[in-house]
Parts: sequence; C-alpha cells; structure tokens
Amino acid sequence: MPQPFSFHLLKTDGAARRGEFVTPHGKVQTPAFMPVGTQGTVKGLSPDDVHATGAEIVLGNTYHLMLRPGAERIAELGGLHKFMNWPLPILTDSGGFQIMSLSDLRKVDDRAVTFRSHLDGAMVELTPERAIEIQALLGADIAMQLDECLRLPATRAEIARAMQLSLRWAERSKRAFETNARNGYALFGIAQGGDDLALRAESASALTTMDFHGYAIGGLAVGEPQEVMLKIVAETTPILPAERPRYLMGVGTPHDLIEAVARGIDMFDCVLPTRNGRHGMAFSRYGAINLANARHANDPRPLDAESSHPAARTYSRAYLHHLTKANEMLGAVLLSTINLAYYQSLMAGMREAIAARRFAEFRDHTTAQWGRGDLPAL
Amino acid sequence: MPQPFSFHLLKTDGAARRGEFVTPHGKVQTPAFMPVGTQGTVKGLSPDDVHATGAEIVLGNTYHLMLRPGAERIAELGGLHKFMNWPLPILTDSGGFQIMSLSDLRKVDDRAVTFRSHLDGAMVELTPERAIEIQALLGADIAMQLDECLRLPATRAEIARAMQLSLRWAERSKRAFETNARNGYALFGIAQGGDDLALRAESASALTTMDFHGYAIGGLAVGEPQEVMLKIVAETTPILPAERPRYLMGVGTPHDLIEAVARGIDMFDCVLPTRNGRHGMAFSRYGAINLANARHANDPRPLDAESSHPAARTYSRAYLHHLTKANEMLGAVLLSTINLAYYQSLMAGMREAIAARRFAEFRDHTTAQWGRGDLPAL
Repeated sequence: MPQPFSFHLLKTDGAARRGEFVTPHGKVQTPAFMPVGTQGTVKGLSPDDVHATGAEIVLGNTYHLMLRPGAERIAELGGLHKFMNWPLPILTDSGGFQIMSLSDLRKVDDRAVTFRSHLDGAMVELTPERAIEIQALLGADIAMQLDECLRLPATRAEIARAMQLSLRWAERSKRAFETNARNGYALFGIAQGGDDLALRAESASALTTMDFHGYAIGGLAVGEPQEVMLKIVAETTPILPAERPRYLMGVGTPHDLIEAVARGIDMFDCVLPTRNGRHGMAFSRYGAINLANARHANDPRPLDAESSHPAARTYSRAYLHHLTKANEMLGAVLLSTINLAYYQSLMAGMREAIAARRFAEFRDHTTAQWGRGDLPAL
Repeated sequence: MPQPFSFHLLKTDGAARRGEFVTPHGKVQTPAFMPVGTQGTVKGLSPDDVHATGAEIVLGNTYHLMLRPGAERIAELGGLHKFMNWPLPILTDSGGFQIMSLSDLRKVDDRAVTFRSHLDGAMVELTPERAIEIQALLGADIAMQLDECLRLPATRAEIARAMQLSLRWAERSKRAFETNARNGYALFGIAQGGDDLALRAESASALTTMDFHGYAIGGLAVGEPQEVMLKIVAETTPILPAERPRYLMGVGTPHDLIEAVARGIDMFDCVLPTRNGRHGMAFSRYGAINLANARHANDPRPLDAESSHPAARTYSRAYLHHLTKANEMLGAVLLSTINLAYYQSLMAGMREAIAARRFAEFRDHTTAQWGRGDLPAL
C-alpha cells in the first residue's frame, strides 16, 4: 500500500527551499527540474539516457497523449510509465496550455473547452472531469487541474474571467480526483491571474482554501518580461502554504530557474533544454553556446571539461559543430542530453547550496560565470 | 609497433568462411557487417550504442567527410576515430559510389573524376591519389581504391571502359598507398564489371595480380535483380585469393547477406538497417516488420522477446508504433538500434554456424523463419 503523497521541507535559505516529495514511483528531491516528454518520449532520448542526466521525474502532456495514442489505449497497455519504460515519477499537465498554444480554434465555456485537434482537425471536448480521468488513465503520480491559459498581454477583464473559470474548474477537478482517488497520487491546483498581482493573490488564496497536494503558478512565460514573471512569483509564493510543493509551469532558462528558486519555487518543467539542443544550442556553466557558430569548427575542446555528464566531457566542440551543421540526429541527441544534464546539475547545485545555506553565494557565482560567457576561442 | 594487417581464415563450410582480421584498432570477426557512419556518425546512435549492437567496425564515407568537415580538419583534430569517438576499426570507402549516386554533374577522365558538391555546388576534383591521401588523413584502418561505379543497366562497352579505368586507378591507388604506407593499415582493391561475368573475372584476376590486402566486389546492388548479384558473387569469389578478406560493398538485406556468405563473402556494409529504421521498418527473425501498420497499435509484446539486444526485448510494439506514427526521433533511434543488433546477431549466427559446419542448416532455418513472417496478431 503506497504512502500518501507527501512533501517534506528539509531546509530553507531565505525564500529558497530544499525539499523532497514522495510518490508511488519514488522520491523526488527539490528544487527539481522535469524534462518534458511531450508524446511519451523526451525527444530522442531513451529513458536510461534521461535518467543518466540526473532526472528523477518527467512530465507528460495530456493534450498530446489524449489525441495520440489515446488515454484509454495507454491504460490498456499498462499506463504511461510502462508504455514509455520510465519507472520513476511522472507529472502530467491537464491540456490547458497546449490547447491555447497548438489549437487555432477553441471555444471555452463553463462546462468545457472544445478545440480542433492539430492532428486531424477533429473537434475534441475537454472538461475538468475528463482531464482528471485522462490523467488517471495515464497513471500520473501528479495530475494537474484543468485551467484556462491566456496569452499575455490580455485585458484585466479577460484575465479575471479566465482566472475565475480556472477556480471553478479547480473545484470540479478536485471533486473528480477524489471520486477515484488512489493513495499516494496527487493533484495540484494552478494559480492564474495573468500579470495582475491582485488577481494572482485572489487565485492563490482561493486554491489554498481548497487544499491541494501542491500548487502551480500557471500562465507565465507566455510573452511577459522576465521581471514581471519574477515579481508575480515573488508575490504569489508567500500566499501558498509552506508545507506544499510549488511548481512554476513551463519555465524556463537557467537564469529563470535560479531566480524562481530564490523566490520560493520547488518544481519546473520546460522544453528549452531539449528544443534548443535540437537547434544546436547548448546550455552550460559558460552560458548559452551556439554550436553552429564557425568559431567551434576546429575546437578540439569538449563543451565543458568539468561537466558531471560524459557527453559534455567527451565529444569535441568541433564534432558537435559538425553534427549541427550536417543536421545529424546525433547532434540533437547529444545536445539534448548535455542540456538536460546541465539543468540537472544546476538543480543539484541549488539543492546543495540551500542545504548549506549558501544559496545567495551560489546564485551570485553561477550568474557571474554565465555573465563572463564562453571560453575564449583557441 | 602495430602488426601488419592480416586475415586469418579460421574455418570454411562449403564456400562460406569464418575468419578474423587484425587492424591497428583491433580485431574483427568475419563474416562481419559494418554499420554506415556516413558523416562521422551512425545516424542517431552514440558510439557506445553502436558497439552495444555488436559492431566491431564501422564504415565512413570519404565523399561526405571530404566535403564536410574536410579531411585536413579531421586530421588536425586527431583523425576520424577520435573525431567521432569510435576507438575500434574504421573502413572508409573512396568516394566513387557517392559521386555516382549524389552528384548530378560529374566528368570522368583518366586523370580524375570532377563532380559538383551536393552541399554548395562547388566543383571538386578527386584523383586516385587524393582519395588515398584523404583516407590516410581520416586514419582509416582499411582504405578503398578509387573506382568508377555505374548504374545498371549499362552497355557492355560502357561497363568495360569503367572497369578498365578502375583497374588503372587501382594501380595508382596502390602506388599512392605504398608511398606513405603505415604498418597495419590496409588497402582493398575493388572488382568492377557490372553484370558481365567475363568482365568481372578479368577485373578480379587483374586485381589479384596487384596483391591487395583485401578485395571488394563493387558496383552491385545498383538496380540489378538479386539473382544476378548472387551469380556475379558466386563467379567472382573463386577468382579471389582465399587468404584475403572479400567485401561485398553496399549490400544488403538479411537475405542478401546470408546468400552472399554462402558464396564466400566476408564483409558487408549497408544503410538499410539504419535508413529503414528511420522509416518505421524493423528487421527481425520474423522478417521485415512495418511498425507503422495499425496491427501493432495495441500490441504489448516486444518486437522480439528472444533478441540479444534489450531494445528489441523492452519496448512494446505499441510504443514503437506510436513513436513511428508521431514521427518521434526516439522511434528512429530505437529501430536503428534494433535493426543493427539484428544484423549483428545474424552475422554472429552465421559465424557460429560456419565454425560448427552447420551453415546450410542455419541458412535454411533462418530463411524459413523469415518466410513464416511475423507473429500472428493478438
């Protein structure tokens, strides 16, 4: 019998938190970064490859998986963990964000969101109850409520309407989740409110009253400046209960991560390390590096001789440049791996620093090293 | 000081041969299949992945590497083994075949072949001497003479002309190779002659007189029926010296391989296992399997529960189907891996069978199993 989902706050350093949560598929150390496995795969990487980067949890996309291969099919095949051969924890989003970003036709009312599938043009309906059912069929350790995401900028009235709708959907999501609750599995609520601090506060307070296993801040990194995002994070996290994990959805760059942890965030997911890796861009202790740049063509040095991951220590910049220019699949695979490993080492560094109450020093040092940029050319 | 290149014929069973050759980067057991690393990478697979399929040697393409990133650049970076992080033997072709298949403009005279680069449209010249120089810069354990390949069908006069030219280029290639010969490194001659048995015999005899470290049969699998190819192989191998390895270039399907080994071939290379893997096609003990087919959509069984490679035993057909339909990179990676592992297990099976003088039985059994086709649908 699995234990109930639980979060343990192990240490704090200012607003930064070092914690751990327990799911039916194992423990996750926080602050944590979740690689995105959109269609049941972190693009190009085997589960062993993903685990070797240091990841303890991955994210799956309800929107993509419900359309193909279908939630019922995955359930028949034993659930998403078995389907993709990932035995560790999985968090699934609820589909709200992808419906906004991928579907060019959608209709939202109180009952449901109806959208046109980007795959075959079919009209598909998603209710809060169905979003929870799908995530249960997938077997997600952590499910997310259905919410309505907006692109920013948006009017205050529009933001308020979507936030209120998301709160009503939070209640329905929670009821649906509790109807078939399985011990150990968790449901997170999602605070909305766009770039309006008062609406954000209202959303976070109302969700807290509903008592979720964890709380996400959604609808950010959708067009607003970084300072706006960080201000909303800084003002929202104090409203959320300290004893529950806090997840900043869809964020972000290494700099976003370190600044959001400084403001009390425990969990992240983002496609940047894999998407940018597929386009020749590496994240590293030296900042972002564009491997397509001709300066790397004759450079025998590895991307980062001190990396914790062999891929960053083994292959030369010249080879990574060649693979990138030649559009070779191995370039995408290696740079995705290197980037995920860098993200995980950044999270591990933050966890260690918070535990030692040296987070401010770690943040300054890491940011300064990014600022100095890449190694000088040979 | 490395030993000279040597081939040891360990056992024969009819015309089939079990052998071993020794290069500066290690030994290779024959019959051997060489995965193709066109642009300095076996597409999508790390060197460790390639080695884990059972490969002991890979092929690199002179044509591609001379154009990008350039042979001199690879030499400066320590050679192709170091560049692609593959510490085991490498054979490079000489560029002749790709010039035929990839360049839409080429001019051949006795001195050189001049062709238009498919990358930037520049006119590039390749002489037999330069082809050898490039392969030395790459550091190939086994280099191939420059030859002229023709598409079939072609007129006898045209085939004879190209074959005679290839013989003159064989002599020049050998002279160039010996000028800077490094102990342990090998040069193979290439028998040409299209689908004309008399021209094939003339080519093979003349090459044998020149005394190469090994002999290839080139210019096949270029449009002729399988029975024509196998007849040429059967008639050519007896002309070649028994104590040297024989390499059938660019071949082929599993059935081609087993039939060519039955006719005295020791080495193969082919893009089929990786190219078809990228298009959802698996090679297996059950024959070719198209993972895009809807019959696999709900099938929880692995591709081959008895495979020697974990990828074929671990992932369900339903998952491989999903990755293929979703055009996910991991589908290409896994099916390329599974196919290369199947090819290597087929070669290992042939080696074992020849050593035990049970090759005819192995061939019949394997062919019959392919003929029975895939497992029945659930």
